[in-house]
Amino acid sequence: MLDKDKILVTLSQVNDPELHRSLTDLKMVRDVKIQDGKVDVTIALTVPNCPLKVQIESDVRAAIAALPEVKQVAVNLTSMTEEERKAVLGEAKEGAAAPYNHIRRVVAVMSGKGGVGKSLVTGLLATALAREGYRVGVLDADITGPSIPTLFGLHGPPEPGPVGIRPLQSRIGIKVISMNFLLENEDTPVIWRGPLIGRAITQLWGDVMWGDLDYLLVDLPPGTSDASLTTMQSLPVNGIVMVTTPQGLASMVVRKAVHMAQAVNTPIVGVVENMAYFVCPDTGKRHFIFGPSHVSEVMLTAGAPLLAQLPIDPQVSALCDAGDVEQVTLVEIPALLEAFIQAMPLMINRPT
Amino acid sequence: MLDKDKILVTLSQVNDPELHRSLTDLKMVRDVKIQDGKVDVTIALTVPNCPLKVQIESDVRAAIAALPEVKQVAVNLTSMTEEERKAVLGEAKEGAAAPYNHIRRVVAVMSGKGGVGKSLVTGLLATALAREGYRVGVLDADITGPSIPTLFGLHGPPEPGPVGIRPLQSRIGIKVISMNFLLENEDTPVIWRGPLIGRAITQLWGDVMWGDLDYLLVDLPPGTSDASLTTMQSLPVNGIVMVTTPQGLASMVVRKAVHMAQAVNTPIVGVVENMAYFVCPDTGKRHFIFGPSHVSEVMLTAGAPLLAQLPIDPQVSALCDAGDVEQVTLVEIPALLEAFIQAMPLMINRPT
Repeated sequence: MLDKDKILVTLSQVNDPELHRSLTDLKMVRDVKIQDGKVDVTIALTVPNCPLKVQIESDVRAAIAALPEVKQVAVNLTSMTEEERKAVLGEAKEGAAAPYNHIRRVVAVMSGKGGVGKSLVTGLLATALAREGYRVGVLDADITGPSIPTLFGLHGPPEPGPVGIRPLQSRIGIKVISMNFLLENEDTPVIWRGPLIGRAITQLWGDVMWGDLDYLLVDLPPGTSDASLTTMQSLPVNGIVMVTTPQGLASMVVRKAVHMAQAVNTPIVGVVENMAYFVCPDTGKRHFIFGPSHVSEVMLTAGAPLLAQLPIDPQVSALCDAGDVEQVTLVEIPALLEAFIQAMPLMINRPT
Repeated sequence: MLDKDKILVTLSQVNDPELHRSLTDLKMVRDVKIQDGKVDVTIALTVPNCPLKVQIESDVRAAIAALPEVKQVAVNLTSMTEEERKAVLGEAKEGAAAPYNHIRRVVAVMSGKGGVGKSLVTGLLATALAREGYRVGVLDADITGPSIPTLFGLHGPPEPGPVGIRPLQSRIGIKVISMNFLLENEDTPVIWRGPLIGRAITQLWGDVMWGDLDYLLVDLPPGTSDASLTTMQSLPVNGIVMVTTPQGLASMVVRKAVHMAQAVNTPIVGVVENMAYFVCPDTGKRHFIFGPSHVSEVMLTAGAPLLAQLPIDPQVSALCDAGDVEQVTLVEIPALLEAFIQAMPLMINRPT
C-alpha cells in the first residue's frame, strides 16, 4: 500500500549528493501528501539556492516514480532555517567540511621563487585534467598575492554550503577557492603574519565543500615559510610539481624549495620549466631571453622527471589576464598532462 | 716634552673610524715606547683582520708624526682577546651594532608579486647611487628566496666586527647583507615560520655594522606578510620603490602592496615597470611580451611618479646570473637615478 512510510523508506535510499547522507537522515523530507496515486513531497534544502537542488529534485522524483503505485510526483523545494540546519549538521566549526570531502590526490605546485609561473602551471594542469574527465579543484594558497582568481576570471564571494563554503566553479567545472574571493575588495592587502596565513590555508582546505575530487592542486606562494610549511604539514599532499625558469637565479631558489620538500618528506612529481624561450612572431626564431636552461640541475637535485618546457607566449599572458587560462592552447600541454599522469601513481602510496 | 702622556693625549683625538670613539677610550693603545724622538706604539684592533686597520694605522701615524718633537713613528698592530673586546664593548647582544650605524635614508623595494624584478631594481639603483658617490647598502630581506647574493656575485660568511657582523662589499663598494651569507650551503632552505623571518630581518638591520650610509635599500620578498610588515614597522623606512610588470595579474597584486604601504603610512617614492618589452635583436622591433602597460593604474593607486620602464634584456639576465649586476648598462638607468633622487627629499621629513 502506498503510504507516507513507504515514501519515507524510499527517500531513505536517496542521498544528498554532497553530504552523502540520506534525505531522511538529514531531516530534509518535510511533507508527504498522497492522493489517488499522486505523491506531493516537500524537501527542505540545507541551504537556500543549493546548486545541487536540480539533482536532488530529480533524484527524489525518480525514486518515488519508481514505486509501482505512483502515477504522478510533485516535488516542492524549500530550505531549512539556520536553526534547523544546525540541529542536523551541528554548529559551524573549523574543518567541518573536511569529513564530507573525498579528495583522491593532493598536488602542490611550488617553486620557492616568485613569478616563475606557478599559477599558470596550476591553471594549465587543472584545465588539462578537467578536459580529460577528472574532477579537479584548485586551492590558491597564495594568501597575500593570489593569481588564481585572475587566471580563471572568478570573483567572490563564495556561496555558503551546509557545512562550509562552496568553491567557485570555473567555466569548465574546475572548483576554485582563493582568499581573494573572501575579500570585499580584490585590491585589499592581506597584512597578516605567518600564523594567520597558515590558518587561512587550513581553512581553505577544511572549511570548503570540495566534494569528490580526483585532483586538488594547491598553488603555493613563493618562499619556504608559513604557507608552504602549513600546506605540507597539514594537508595530505601526495606530491609536488616544481616550477622553475631558465634564470640561474631562479634555479638556486628552486633548489631550496626542492630541499624543503625533501626535508618534509614530500615527493616531487616532476619539474616544469616555464619561460624557456620566446618565439619571435616575425622570424620564428627562438630567443632564450632568460638564458640557457638550468632545468637539468633542478631535476638532478629533485630526482624527478621533466614534465614540460613552456615558452613565453604573449597570447598566454593575454588569456591569463583576461581570465581565460582554460582557453590556453600550447603544443606542450598534452605531453605535460601525460608525463604528470604517468608520474602520479608513484606518489599515491608513498612511504611515511 | 715628548712622553707617554703626550702620545696618549694625541691618540685620544684619533677615533676608530667605525665605532666613532677614540682609540684611548676603546683601550686600543697598548704600548708606547719613546727613544730619541722615535715613537713606537702598539694598537690592539677590536677584531683581528679589521678591514679598517690600514686607515687606523695611518691615522695613528699621522697624529703622532704631527708632533714637533717626533722624528720617526712605528705602529705595531695586534688585536684584542675576546675578553678584552667584551670589557670595552660589552657582551654581543641583539641590535648592538645599531647605535654605531648612521643611515640617512632607508628605502624598501617592494612589489607584492614575486618575480617582477625587485632585486634587479635594487641592484641597479644601488649601483647607480654608488657610482654617483653615495655610500650605499643593500639589505636582502628576502630570507627564504634571496636573489641579491647571486646578482652581486657575493658569498658568505661575513666577517665578525667588534659589535656585530660586517656586511660584504661588492666590487664597487656597496655593502651587502643577506641571510644566504649566513647559511653553510646556499641551497639550504630556510624553513621558518613568520616570527623567525621577522626576527631575522631586524637582526640584519641591528646586528650588522653598516657604518655611515647615504642609502640603505631593503629588497623585500613577495607578499604583504611578515617580512614586509616587520620591515615597515621595525625599520625607519623613508619610502618605497614599487616594482611592477605589464601583466594585469601583477598590477592587481602590486596594488595590494600599495594599499599595504598606505595602511602603514609609508610613502611611495615611485614606480618602476620592469619587463616592459623585448627588443628583437634581429628586427629591432619591440615585442610587448607581457601585454600592454598597466603602470598608470599602479601609479594612480600609489599617487607616485614613474621612475622607469625597463625592457626585458637577455644581457641583463646573463649579467645578473653571473653576479655582475653592477656591470648592467641600460639607457634607462640615468633617468631612473635622477627621478629617484628627485623624489627622495619628499620622503625624508615625512609626517608621522
